[in-house]
Amino acid sequence: MTKYHPLSEEQAIEYARQIPDLFQSRAELSSREIGDGNLNLVFHISEPSTGKSIILKQALPYAKVVGESWPLTLDRARIESEALQIEESLCPDLVPHVYAYEPDLALTVMEDLSDHVIMRRGLIERNQYPLFAEHIARFLAHTLFFTSDLGKNQQEKKVQLGRFINPELCKITEDLIFDDPYRDADTNSIEAHIRDAAEQIWKDTELHLEVAILRNKFLTSAQALLHGDLHTGSIFIKAYSTKVIDPEFAYYGPMGFDIGAVLANLLLNFAGQEGWSTDEASRADYREYLLHTVKDVWNNFERNFRQLWNEHGVDRVFQTPGYQDYFIASLLQDTFGFTGAKMVRRVYGLAHVADIDKIEDASARERAQRLALSIGTKLIRFNRQAKSIDELIQLVTKETTAERGFAL
Amino acid sequence: MTKYHPLSEEQAIEYARQIPDLFQSRAELSSREIGDGNLNLVFHISEPSTGKSIILKQALPYAKVVGESWPLTLDRARIESEALQIEESLCPDLVPHVYAYEPDLALTVMEDLSDHVIMRRGLIERNQYPLFAEHIARFLAHTLFFTSDLGKNQQEKKVQLGRFINPELCKITEDLIFDDPYRDADTNSIEAHIRDAAEQIWKDTELHLEVAILRNKFLTSAQALLHGDLHTGSIFIKAYSTKVIDPEFAYYGPMGFDIGAVLANLLLNFAGQEGWSTDEASRADYREYLLHTVKDVWNNFERNFRQLWNEHGVDRVFQTPGYQDYFIASLLQDTFGFTGAKMVRRVYGLAHVADIDKIEDASARERAQRLALSIGTKLIRFNRQAKSIDELIQLVTKETTAERGFAL
Repeated sequence: MTKYHPLSEEQAIEYARQIPDLFQSRAELSSREIGDGNLNLVFHISEPSTGKSIILKQALPYAKVVGESWPLTLDRARIESEALQIEESLCPDLVPHVYAYEPDLALTVMEDLSDHVIMRRGLIERNQYPLFAEHIARFLAHTLFFTSDLGKNQQEKKVQLGRFINPELCKITEDLIFDDPYRDADTNSIEAHIRDAAEQIWKDTELHLEVAILRNKFLTSAQALLHGDLHTGSIFIKAYSTKVIDPEFAYYGPMGFDIGAVLANLLLNFAGQEGWSTDEASRADYREYLLHTVKDVWNNFERNFRQLWNEHGVDRVFQTPGYQDYFIASLLQDTFGFTGAKMVRRVYGLAHVADIDKIEDASARERAQRLALSIGTKLIRFNRQAKSIDELIQLVTKETTAERGFAL
Repeated sequence: MTKYHPLSEEQAIEYARQIPDLFQSRAELSSREIGDGNLNLVFHISEPSTGKSIILKQALPYAKVVGESWPLTLDRARIESEALQIEESLCPDLVPHVYAYEPDLALTVMEDLSDHVIMRRGLIERNQYPLFAEHIARFLAHTLFFTSDLGKNQQEKKVQLGRFINPELCKITEDLIFDDPYRDADTNSIEAHIRDAAEQIWKDTELHLEVAILRNKFLTSAQALLHGDLHTGSIFIKAYSTKVIDPEFAYYGPMGFDIGAVLANLLLNFAGQEGWSTDEASRADYREYLLHTVKDVWNNFERNFRQLWNEHGVDRVFQTPGYQDYFIASLLQDTFGFTGAKMVRRVYGLAHVADIDKIEDASARERAQRLALSIGTKLIRFNRQAKSIDELIQLVTKETTAERGFAL
């Protein structure tokens, strides 16, 4: 890493110019740094004369969160770049194309997705994405199946696992998702009006037992190469296109963690509709859309995944009658648990979501927070008993009715 | 590996001579090659004038099994040497001391244990080892606890896991334990008189489902650094000393696999007593000793492991009330399953055990084989319902009575 230095805009342009077959020689190029400066530099490089553009993403050797700065490995740029390329090989339409990766600079050059919007923003604006469930389910099914012992040569899988040892970024998840929200940790960021709910959770040892079991799965269950941070802020979207970005948390972990991340973020927006919907009817409509999407994501995933297994399974033993059903049933239970864990931490842990935090009306925001906590904790508590995705929908509906005192 | 070449006895002596602080300078040294020539060269180097001796173990770049030869990674010498050193740091009295490791030659220099016997032989000779249960339970508890997320810094554990990616040797286990015995595979080696029992097992899809679940754990459950091949042929023993050798199969896997290996090999000898015991009374006595040992191994392990957890647990979340009991209960179930799987493969898979194969009387040998298969398959079938080690003892007793038509 001796050659590493953060690029200036001029250097970013210089670098972009020499990528073969992209821009015209001696083209006029312009650059805008569009990163938030917390973790990465992100340069948007464009050629005004042709309209072509690309993204240069460079990892910074530190992370800035709530004012603090701590060192963070540049190896995450390699992990992100390699994960993106594996994902591209499995579902090329669902991730940005990687043009180049420069290890010394921790720099990835990739397709510009400026014509898409960040899905979290799209959901806050109450857009509907009818193709999303199919897209993300296919992304999940293909990336999880073909990197696992079910769909990949099992010896090559072990070697690939070795390339995705990701201690520093896993540590963030282990602490912020599976530990800090369940105690009075400094990292928590709790609005005063929901402190009682947080304190309730800190005392709930039955809930803690389920979290411990989920944490253990996150630490030890090397099922598949996960994206590792698959929230709606890691998804670029427009009507006919879905693109998953930012797999810097990628590592070999439990499949349900990725599926749960998607469902949790849909449900966080569901809770946030306390603040975003302008009237009861439109709230009920949008929530119905979100719940349909949750169900469609799982059902499409399950169908895709079973089909891949039947057509591309590499393991004779795993074709044993009953094993596929057993596997899917366990995966659904994990998905319930991880969905719940991903919801709770977003309400009063270190990192919140705009779907709830940006609600201006304090009482609507509080209702959204309590609803998210109530759904999240119920999902965690129920996870090892779950038998079908319909139970998740029912549970969400029931909690919503209970919190609001009347129907959706 | 360019400098690699198999050592001659002269070269082995030359190498031994230069190890500091071991032999006298210009000492007369003699060498005997005592390996079986299938996987490794093993030189016993001694200094007659002082009685000092050491072992040089050099990996060969191939494996010879039943006449066939296939290439096998020399990296296993590194894995064995590093695993031994980790084990030594955790329970120094229970493994041979490593004097040196020479990567280029795939060579480990270690303590000579010629004053011990291989435990399998000791059991066939019907010796009793009253300290064995305490020793092996302590070995299991310390190595499994302190390499897992319970007892080791969780980020360092991930890095260590990366050093023990062991695809080739894991593949041997995946095939020979979890696949081939459950189908009519070429690798199986089936005596004609028990072919009917093997065919029964090939048709038993309920059994196959449990084997698939166990296989999945072997492939994905990265709980702890396992020895990976902890049968009684990997244990040197004498009255007051137990030494675990040969961890070349070491990798991060499910803890129950190591515990199950120990129990399975005690139970294979238990079955073998059809041939080794000279009369019913002495058979009953020795079997009682073996069953006591099985129970003591588990109980000592559990006590040790819980104590380490309470005193040295590194993870706050894993101190959650109820989680330790949950973990131990799951581990017991895994142990039932892996014990069973380790028994079945030793009866008619590729590699058998002398405890049964060396019984000369064909009808006694057949009784031993059928009893081992019957106990093994029952343990596999029952594994996910197991609640206590007493059930294992009862199950063994019941199968023995059923197979023999009368009590032990």
